[in-house]
Amino acid sequence: MDLALMLARATRGQTHPNPQVGAVLVAAGRVIGLGTHLKAGDPHAEVHALRMAGEHARGATLYVTLEPCAHVGRTPPCADAVIQAGITRVVVALEDPDPRVAGRGISRMREAGISVEVGCMREQTEELLRPYLHVKATGLPYVTLKLATTLDGFLATASGESLYMTGDAARAAVHRLRAQVDAVGVGIGTVLADDPKLTVRLGGEFRQPARIVFDRKARLPLDARLVSDRAAETYVLCSEDASMDRVHELRAHGVNVIVIGPHETFTMKTALHKLVEIGFIHLLIEGGSTIATALLSERLATELWWFHAPLILGQGISGLGALAIQSLHSAFTLENPRIEVFGSDVLTKGALKYT
Amino acid sequence: MDLALMLARATRGQTHPNPQVGAVLVAAGRVIGLGTHLKAGDPHAEVHALRMAGEHARGATLYVTLEPCAHVGRTPPCADAVIQAGITRVVVALEDPDPRVAGRGISRMREAGISVEVGCMREQTEELLRPYLHVKATGLPYVTLKLATTLDGFLATASGESLYMTGDAARAAVHRLRAQVDAVGVGIGTVLADDPKLTVRLGGEFRQPARIVFDRKARLPLDARLVSDRAAETYVLCSEDASMDRVHELRAHGVNVIVIGPHETFTMKTALHKLVEIGFIHLLIEGGSTIATALLSERLATELWWFHAPLILGQGISGLGALAIQSLHSAFTLENPRIEVFGSDVLTKGALKYT
Repeated sequence: MDLALMLARATRGQTHPNPQVGAVLVAAGRVIGLGTHLKAGDPHAEVHALRMAGEHARGATLYVTLEPCAHVGRTPPCADAVIQAGITRVVVALEDPDPRVAGRGISRMREAGISVEVGCMREQTEELLRPYLHVKATGLPYVTLKLATTLDGFLATASGESLYMTGDAARAAVHRLRAQVDAVGVGIGTVLADDPKLTVRLGGEFRQPARIVFDRKARLPLDARLVSDRAAETYVLCSEDASMDRVHELRAHGVNVIVIGPHETFTMKTALHKLVEIGFIHLLIEGGSTIATALLSERLATELWWFHAPLILGQGISGLGALAIQSLHSAFTLENPRIEVFGSDVLTKGALKYT
Repeated sequence: MDLALMLARATRGQTHPNPQVGAVLVAAGRVIGLGTHLKAGDPHAEVHALRMAGEHARGATLYVTLEPCAHVGRTPPCADAVIQAGITRVVVALEDPDPRVAGRGISRMREAGISVEVGCMREQTEELLRPYLHVKATGLPYVTLKLATTLDGFLATASGESLYMTGDAARAAVHRLRAQVDAVGVGIGTVLADDPKLTVRLGGEFRQPARIVFDRKARLPLDARLVSDRAAETYVLCSEDASMDRVHELRAHGVNVIVIGPHETFTMKTALHKLVEIGFIHLLIEGGSTIATALLSERLATELWWFHAPLILGQGISGLGALAIQSLHSAFTLENPRIEVFGSDVLTKGALKYT
């Protein structure tokens, strides 16, 4: 199962909206098949492993991190493929909470006489599939909110100066995080102030996450890097307040513009629901202050990464606006926060615990 | 010299306004005398070591962390005592910058035919004596400014709730710091809001630092813990704006009230000069926001300790007020910041670098 989990981990960020899954076939103590789910629409992990094993699969044991599916999606049900291949024992880490599966894969295999064990390395698998499990449980994407401020909590000077507040090591950590998520989002204010690329810029070869601009009035300039660099897909989420001419122009430049509805229906929640529909299950939101405050006020950020650089400004643009928190008791906190040091900068990160 | 430095370190916080000094006498490879300066008015380290050695001091080598004094203070000049004892070689870590010494101790010993070497373990000694060297160089105390805030930089909620924002481990670190300084200071606002004790509360026996209240109008209540607990000396720094009745009342309750002068002369700088006169060379200032902002604006804080607790408030009382910093380039920074983790809290500390 350890090997199956490694195979699942290897595809981080590339399988959405599907979960990452790894499978290993073992016969007489020897590995006879390996599989991992590479991307949506491709064969599932079990199918790759069965193909590799061929005839040797008969009588073998399948280790798979997630319950084999029982429904016809873009590919036929894996549970049936497992049965047909003559597998006699299946070890599953985690049941699939997808309502189309939800135990049906396991029961179908058991009905076919296969011995099925569930729960091996469950915790590690849950950890890996946190975004997928979050979406299945809430219908909303798993949102990592990242902020980088001075010690006194400012994103930028009053005039908006902010680029490269943290050092190289902290920025590299953000780039590694970008490489693990499905999409990176910012508010239009950040785009207009900083003209960011939001790409993964690290040595080596990395998949570029999609880029999302929360941009109610579709103000994204055509000469913004997010439009002109063609380094990754760009999505603009706007309301019907946006000029339709603008929407058409952006589309003509290759931007995916999604009109959510009338002004009053454009909330972070409706925007995030739309992103799940598109297939994004793990989002990294990098600010600015307006988006960060909206995500926290609506209790939609799942986890927080807060970097502090050893600077003091005294005044400037705050990382967060008011959250209607009146007492210390009702402050938002981080569950089991972890602290990481990057040179002179420090990161406090953890799952958000709302009150 | 390593042993002499250990002896000097052992008296941290108890020798002010004098520096910590350690001395070791060695003859034929054997330690024959040890000394450390225990408190102002007591014999200096060299004298203790010479007394311990008695007649054996003749022909011995003296290792001492700071240049022996050459002037008559509360005790006679140590350089003379060293000469009279018949010491033939002296190893000194650091020259004493005190204008009454400043090389005169060394030259007097050399004139008496003693071989004197200077500079052994200079850096470690400078590190130990940083507050003393700072006072000699600037006439101002070495000020450690400590703040503890939420991730977004708030000391307290808008209503002033703040006690125990950080966890036990971080608070213990603050108590250890208190045990090392000469005095702990706060603004009157903090006293009125939190009624702090400012004492060292740790297992074991600790010297209690003096407590200082920056209190222009002498508003310190007679029932404040700083007045009533008698756990350590309390000083109130006020201006002539304070009611003289109030000053007398506070004095009658055992508080040392120091009237700095007319309102307009009461600045952080005049207050700190006064504290040096009293004999405090290392101050820990624990806030609140008004005092912290004044210290930074006047560029009087020497080093900063900033604790972040894993909380978010969105609004409240900021750790710092405006500092007239307009650009990122002119932000105050920390020199070689060090980061320490205390459970879920994190401390960024370092020497302040002003612009």
